[in-house]
Amino acid sequence: MFKVNDNYLKLPGSYLFSTIAKKVNAFTAANPDKKIIRLGIGDVTQPLSESVISSLHIAVDEMADAKTFRGYAPDLGYEFLRNAIAENDYKMRGCEIYPDEIFVSDGAKCDSGNIQEIFAADTRIAVCDPVYPVYVDSNVMAGRCGDYDESKGTWSNVIYMPCTAENNYAPELPKETPDVIYLCFPNNPTGSAITKDELQRWVDYANKNKALIIYDAAYEAYISEGDVPHSVYECEGARTCAIELHSFSKNAGFTGVRLGYTVVPKDLKCGDVSLNSLWARRHSTKYNGAPYIVQRAGEAVYSEKGKKEIKELVAYYMKNASYILNGLKEAGYTVSGGVNAPYIWLKTPDNMTSWEFFDYLLEKANVVGTPGSGFGPSGEGYFRLTAFGNYENTVEAVDRIKRL
Amino acid sequence: MFKVNDNYLKLPGSYLFSTIAKKVNAFTAANPDKKIIRLGIGDVTQPLSESVISSLHIAVDEMADAKTFRGYAPDLGYEFLRNAIAENDYKMRGCEIYPDEIFVSDGAKCDSGNIQEIFAADTRIAVCDPVYPVYVDSNVMAGRCGDYDESKGTWSNVIYMPCTAENNYAPELPKETPDVIYLCFPNNPTGSAITKDELQRWVDYANKNKALIIYDAAYEAYISEGDVPHSVYECEGARTCAIELHSFSKNAGFTGVRLGYTVVPKDLKCGDVSLNSLWARRHSTKYNGAPYIVQRAGEAVYSEKGKKEIKELVAYYMKNASYILNGLKEAGYTVSGGVNAPYIWLKTPDNMTSWEFFDYLLEKANVVGTPGSGFGPSGEGYFRLTAFGNYENTVEAVDRIKRL
Repeated sequence: MFKVNDNYLKLPGSYLFSTIAKKVNAFTAANPDKKIIRLGIGDVTQPLSESVISSLHIAVDEMADAKTFRGYAPDLGYEFLRNAIAENDYKMRGCEIYPDEIFVSDGAKCDSGNIQEIFAADTRIAVCDPVYPVYVDSNVMAGRCGDYDESKGTWSNVIYMPCTAENNYAPELPKETPDVIYLCFPNNPTGSAITKDELQRWVDYANKNKALIIYDAAYEAYISEGDVPHSVYECEGARTCAIELHSFSKNAGFTGVRLGYTVVPKDLKCGDVSLNSLWARRHSTKYNGAPYIVQRAGEAVYSEKGKKEIKELVAYYMKNASYILNGLKEAGYTVSGGVNAPYIWLKTPDNMTSWEFFDYLLEKANVVGTPGSGFGPSGEGYFRLTAFGNYENTVEAVDRIKRL
Repeated sequence: MFKVNDNYLKLPGSYLFSTIAKKVNAFTAANPDKKIIRLGIGDVTQPLSESVISSLHIAVDEMADAKTFRGYAPDLGYEFLRNAIAENDYKMRGCEIYPDEIFVSDGAKCDSGNIQEIFAADTRIAVCDPVYPVYVDSNVMAGRCGDYDESKGTWSNVIYMPCTAENNYAPELPKETPDVIYLCFPNNPTGSAITKDELQRWVDYANKNKALIIYDAAYEAYISEGDVPHSVYECEGARTCAIELHSFSKNAGFTGVRLGYTVVPKDLKCGDVSLNSLWARRHSTKYNGAPYIVQRAGEAVYSEKGKKEIKELVAYYMKNASYILNGLKEAGYTVSGGVNAPYIWLKTPDNMTSWEFFDYLLEKANVVGTPGSGFGPSGEGYFRLTAFGNYENTVEAVDRIKRL
């Protein structure tokens, strides 16, 4: 008799963003005349850049001709893309990462959900609190997190590292030693960043304690301050303790194009076992590569023209971030983030819970944000707004909030 | 201290097709003047059809304009594609499958590797022998298959259902009752098919024994005989016992485009738990949708023009299949498949092992095929050739084999 994976049944409610979508759909159905402005999910709104579009068209035409047609991609991704990544994202930053340590995928969400598979069933994970839900939920599904305490909003076998106003949203080293530590900087959801010195402490801690860091660098393109690292491999010793996740979604607007990559250095080992080999085995067994045309689009992001366009795109969204940050400050909100990240983290007014503020904002201002509590218990009483809207809508949303 | 998933270490060697690629690369490096013809991996060679190319270009242009730009896709896939699938692949065949039972993905390989996640850790699987390696390997990685017996080439906790010349490559109902049964018809690798009556026996067996069938219909477009079912849902009772996997790779040439879908009917339950909900939860947590432009390409496959083009593409490859089948018969080989499937399954001559014949064919005819033993112990002494080459190469390959 077939039986289901009981771990799935432990997950409370649905995936955070599915819940939000359902609430917004219900509100829209009941209020068809209201113009909703969505600053909730981190989805981009601006079109793909010229060089990306041009590369896509060229690649599509290649697929129309038997002489240039491409079937299955190489397991780890096309060399043209892996070389461009190694050169631009690593070598030019002084990081020692080679093309055969780069695994091209259809996005950082998939990789961040799948990466836990290569670790032992009894792996103890540590996460920031609040945190991007995929890190925890994917480990719950694998049976690693123990039981959920509804009253606390925590899992019994997860080490939570609170990120609060008190520690400037930068986690402290955990008291109990975890096996795997998820870090995301610039941070989703708080929009906070850490300096290279601070990150070096984590790398040293991991090497000393034989822990592994999964470093989510999805938002590195938004870094504006000089002492904030773009990659964990800027730190000494990271090659023996860190895996890094990258996305093309936020820098190049690829949320609907789907492209990302994961770096697993060959020096990363558990005894004799190379984690690079394990991840390669997972890739070749359960994955079949990102589309050729999409990998060509990714390559275009690293062209001279592409890099210039990306900068403009990031600047566009960061102008939104500044507008939100300053507007909310003027309105008397306590806000952070928005300087090295496209997220603004605000304290809900009048001791409202995160979901109360979600409903309040949806009903009174027709603005959609993300309840901080959806990211973990330390997110309760906080709220996330994203800078990924278009400028006009962002201005209108902030003005509406100011008028409340 | 972090530890790896030991189950990965149980896997013998590398993924079959990676091993073949390495052998071929080594041969090419040593013999740069030899023209290799690849009839090994099931990768297509013919360009995408006009309607698909045209849809891709239109969708790319939509991504260049903020007004028509698309970010994250809906979790299960765009409605336009799910509706087209429900209408064309199911309703028109008299199958009761609804759009919200269809989960669009980046390919059947990913889905066939990931689907095991929603089942209990102690699930006992049954597979055909020989079999597409992903079904078994993905379960090994999840720790369900026991230990590998190198001498037999089998896993201690897997129920093998031999498909041999004696049973016309159609498995018999297993003696021990499995929890989950993987079936793929038309079959990879043997190219065999089963009739609707034969499939109905499996559906009845599954319902009676509370087993679940994962039905891989990746090759259904190649069916030429009237009594061979295109979908498991043509059988009565399949909605309560079967999940179906579909690919756009082989019918529409999407191996490098990446698109597939999985059907999980809402009537499929374990107690009160809906498997449709579990798979939806996996999708929304660990996946972020197929690219918009690719989903539009998939939609084009179902247009009137698209359907006509697909038929021509399938006919092209099936002409290859006939040429291989007849050519090898003339040369005295014992062959099967190639009538309802793009695969030809041949008995190796002179009692060669599958890998001996692989090396022999590579060295003497410079033709790459797939060793049958790579698909399971009952594949030993067999060899798979695919019809996905271009016609000229296929003819040359067969002629070379005839001359051996």
